[in-house]
Amino acid sequence: MSCVQASDVFELLRDGTPRTRAQLAEVTGLARSTIAARVDELLQLGLIAPTGGVSTGGRPPSLLSMNPRARVVAGVDVGATHVALVLGDLSGEILGEVSTAMDVAEGPEQVLAWVLEAVGTLLAAHGRSAGDLAAIGIGLPGPVEHSTGRAINPPIMPGWDRYDVPRRIHAEYAVPVLVDNDVNIMALGEQRARFRDVQDLIFVKVATGIGAGIISGGALQRGAQGTAGDLGHVRVGASQAACRCGNTGCLEAVAAGPALAAALTRAGVPATSGQDVVDLARAGDLTAVQVVRQAGRDLGEVLATMVNLMNPSVVVIGGRIAASGEHLLAGIREVVYQRSLPLATEHLRMVPSMVGQRAAVQGAVAMAVAHVLSPEQIELAVRRLAGA
Amino acid sequence: MSCVQASDVFELLRDGTPRTRAQLAEVTGLARSTIAARVDELLQLGLIAPTGGVSTGGRPPSLLSMNPRARVVAGVDVGATHVALVLGDLSGEILGEVSTAMDVAEGPEQVLAWVLEAVGTLLAAHGRSAGDLAAIGIGLPGPVEHSTGRAINPPIMPGWDRYDVPRRIHAEYAVPVLVDNDVNIMALGEQRARFRDVQDLIFVKVATGIGAGIISGGALQRGAQGTAGDLGHVRVGASQAACRCGNTGCLEAVAAGPALAAALTRAGVPATSGQDVVDLARAGDLTAVQVVRQAGRDLGEVLATMVNLMNPSVVVIGGRIAASGEHLLAGIREVVYQRSLPLATEHLRMVPSMVGQRAAVQGAVAMAVAHVLSPEQIELAVRRLAGA
Repeated sequence: MSCVQASDVFELLRDGTPRTRAQLAEVTGLARSTIAARVDELLQLGLIAPTGGVSTGGRPPSLLSMNPRARVVAGVDVGATHVALVLGDLSGEILGEVSTAMDVAEGPEQVLAWVLEAVGTLLAAHGRSAGDLAAIGIGLPGPVEHSTGRAINPPIMPGWDRYDVPRRIHAEYAVPVLVDNDVNIMALGEQRARFRDVQDLIFVKVATGIGAGIISGGALQRGAQGTAGDLGHVRVGASQAACRCGNTGCLEAVAAGPALAAALTRAGVPATSGQDVVDLARAGDLTAVQVVRQAGRDLGEVLATMVNLMNPSVVVIGGRIAASGEHLLAGIREVVYQRSLPLATEHLRMVPSMVGQRAAVQGAVAMAVAHVLSPEQIELAVRRLAGA
Repeated sequence: MSCVQASDVFELLRDGTPRTRAQLAEVTGLARSTIAARVDELLQLGLIAPTGGVSTGGRPPSLLSMNPRARVVAGVDVGATHVALVLGDLSGEILGEVSTAMDVAEGPEQVLAWVLEAVGTLLAAHGRSAGDLAAIGIGLPGPVEHSTGRAINPPIMPGWDRYDVPRRIHAEYAVPVLVDNDVNIMALGEQRARFRDVQDLIFVKVATGIGAGIISGGALQRGAQGTAGDLGHVRVGASQAACRCGNTGCLEAVAAGPALAAALTRAGVPATSGQDVVDLARAGDLTAVQVVRQAGRDLGEVLATMVNLMNPSVVVIGGRIAASGEHLLAGIREVVYQRSLPLATEHLRMVPSMVGQRAAVQGAVAMAVAHVLSPEQIELAVRRLAGA
């Protein structure tokens, strides 16, 4: 029965309103002795703190509230060619950040060595010790088995396949390590930053690969093996384009960065990467605009299916290719409104990602905080206190 | 704070283990007076009952447990050409049932008149009064706005568009009325009956129309407007078949009952309905088998996308066309294993619906019970007691 555990008392204080023990007893109907015990546990954990209350004799000050700076979490975004790390508090606020250019293909040892060093640097810069760190959330640019924190057959991450990320982190920090793929944490980050009241949101990342993070019924949906949201290998129309996955006609084979560069080159405008296509489209090159628009239509075909199947109220389009301006979104909208059911699109918002790469680190922090403040983790910490 | 409301005490007793007030106080840490008040409320609501306890003087008997027969719910499955109704208890057990052949196109007044009469008949047959009825769950064969209980633009239900189903029921029974589309309640019914531990399940109904009920992360996902699961109007390959929705190439236009009858007729075997095709396929007609198999492949194309996007662990295939034997499922499997990602299909089970139409009424009962026993409803009932 979790009803009157420390986590429940903490939930009451998460709204930020300071309360006395007597008020907590009154609101909950709990015996004063029960409240006193739970409050003591939370004080010992540092999750709540006295707030400007009046101390009466030897008793602790009477007003209590959540203490967002009690602990910190690290949020890490490992991209294909960069790593970014932020330190956040328990309310999700970002305290500081560092980032570097680094190819994920350099492998987990090198990337995580940088992460571990950066965590130490940021902790020190903010006057925090390793003991203040409560959890680390990490996003990786490939399929992740969330329950074990391992990447599974990641196409652009040589050396990472089934590599035990939490174990490497644990060599230096004995904290929970939450690993997920980048699009899932981006979906969380967008929801936390811009769409807190939205229960059904899809975040689509269009870059070297194409993937989606799905929030349905207010919760991130990872599916049975954590591969939910993989729209990159959905077949598009009658395309026979060969895909690196071994199939033909996959969305990635026609609408991801390398495919756009190839299409633009075939149309007589040399391009070596998706970034070239984006740059040319932003500069107004008509052929590049047409290539991006067609990519939007191809994306729109799969998104129309997603809209029919999931009926989201918000679809956020992000990733490097989405930076090409309105052309991609225009192509997407054209097909989604043509192919999705009117009832599903009547109130649908399709918008560009606003927080960009910040969506990833914000989502990584949100994932770490949600874990730290979950009733299960609070109870676990309380039991550790009792055992200590 | 719901922490120590009657619903919490009830949650403790739902496991079926009888407990005394003293045990409840001990387990929860609540003050004896709090427990006594909550228990009195639940006793007054009839949701818990004394169980063979020893009465001490004028005090009520001391052992308490959940009382599944305290109230009953009705579960209704309105199909295209039938209506079935069962009476269930609060544990979801079916107490009795009636059904009739009736075309949903006869309209809501006629269908609901039968339902209301059947509810009365079943209540009487089981010695129950109208006051014993706690809720009614209803599945309809078309899109439903779950929050208001209205069908929205249902294609095969003339007269039902935006018809206020709960209001009609309330003219005779002042109980909560939960309305959902038939595939959603079938998904719930299959999960309750066969896959209680499965968190990610898709139920696909293939009949005159094609639709799916989606359970992700353990919860039924209805989407923002309640239209989630509409795979009937997802485009299939390069098909240009005209669909009744106004678009071309929809799955329904190539793989639902009427499309199969038309395909079989074109192939030289006259068929007027999907049922004809099923009958012929079951009788071994090779052309009918080929038509059904191809429908399976077309379904498989959309299901491969659903498997990539949602990563379910179970896909259940039901509906009248699924009764054609293994041919439909074989076609589905062929394409899903070809087009879905290996990680998503490694542990995937694709199975025929076992409980058939019973999935619908069992799901309707489950939906009604979940509502009646939700903390919100118990608190509402308690507040009504207090106001009475």
